[in-house]
Amino acid sequence: MRDTVEAIPTEVITIADAKRGDIGTTAERYATAVFDVLGFDAMTVNPYQGSDSVEPYIRDPSHGAFVLCKTSNPGSDDFQNLRGGDGAALWELVARRALTWNERSNVGLVVGATFPEELGRVRALAPDLPILIPGVGTQGGDAGESGRLGAAVDGTMAVINASRQVLYASSGPDWREAARREATALRDAMASAVGARSMAGMG
Amino acid sequence: MRDTVEAIPTEVITIADAKRGDIGTTAERYATAVFDVLGFDAMTVNPYQGSDSVEPYIRDPSHGAFVLCKTSNPGSDDFQNLRGGDGAALWELVARRALTWNERSNVGLVVGATFPEELGRVRALAPDLPILIPGVGTQGGDAGESGRLGAAVDGTMAVINASRQVLYASSGPDWREAARREATALRDAMASAVGARSMAGMG
Repeated sequence: MRDTVEAIPTEVITIADAKRGDIGTTAERYATAVFDVLGFDAMTVNPYQGSDSVEPYIRDPSHGAFVLCKTSNPGSDDFQNLRGGDGAALWELVARRALTWNERSNVGLVVGATFPEELGRVRALAPDLPILIPGVGTQGGDAGESGRLGAAVDGTMAVINASRQVLYASSGPDWREAARREATALRDAMASAVGARSMAGMG
Repeated sequence: MRDTVEAIPTEVITIADAKRGDIGTTAERYATAVFDVLGFDAMTVNPYQGSDSVEPYIRDPSHGAFVLCKTSNPGSDDFQNLRGGDGAALWELVARRALTWNERSNVGLVVGATFPEELGRVRALAPDLPILIPGVGTQGGDAGESGRLGAAVDGTMAVINASRQVLYASSGPDWREAARREATALRDAMASAVGARSMAGMG
């Protein structure tokens, strides 16, 4: 893992999708492992245990956390859609709380590409926060739509992730070309969608 | 880790307090790592992502999961106390859902000793489920009270965990005796409390 992180150019932000969530003292050790030992810039964090389980990952402004908000998987609705007395769902409460955690500009949110309506609403709630958007490709989310709904007004801050679509593009000897083809197609779809969003924001 | 698990007598149930939570395909790999590679019997699981993120850990009835319900840490209230339209908190929703996941009798809940009121209510909601109860000792929970509130009517099903109180009982050369002393005191407090609960249940 350390070798892989080292092989990534330093101008590229590395995010460990570790989805860790634990009490503060344990979270501190996870932060040390992921940031200091493995060398990642940021990681994904589960909010279920609340503020003190997130704080160790965002204490140092040179590192940061993407907090699970509305996840891409089918079971995402089971608890994240629980609505409180004011009608706001748990995922909205998480988004609002993440804004208060963002004192050092190092907090982002995770919203699945498979929930475009929620993605648009999280972007409206948190106009400037980075949103990590998994679920494109194998899970069924659309890269273009995710870019359009997930980007900030200036076209940035949507971090769209596709793993299996690229990693497993081919199991044959053409895997290099196949992976490159999938990655390029995704990049073009995102750039085009984000460009459209950016133009709309300027209008 | 594997050596440690192997050193534990087979009649003792081993629980990896890994608090994992991820989409189904990733959860399957975590289950393989923790149950098959490391040899644990059960593990703790974060419910935020819902049913498909828990299912891989409870598919095989010879292994099981303890689902985070009301955790022991200060930030526990931030999201777990969100109340839906029917007045039930998120942690109650998790407890009720865990009951539906318990088809193979291999689902438990995690409720912190630092929240005795919630512990009693989870026990009432789920009369027969094992409850893993961290937060005794360093975190401030009381072992006796946890046994009394957390045990089932027959005095079983409360799994009270103390880590730092025992591990760090002494940093001097007397650490063996100090750890034994703390562990024995905890065991006696729990046995006495659970015995009282069991007697009350018989009355």
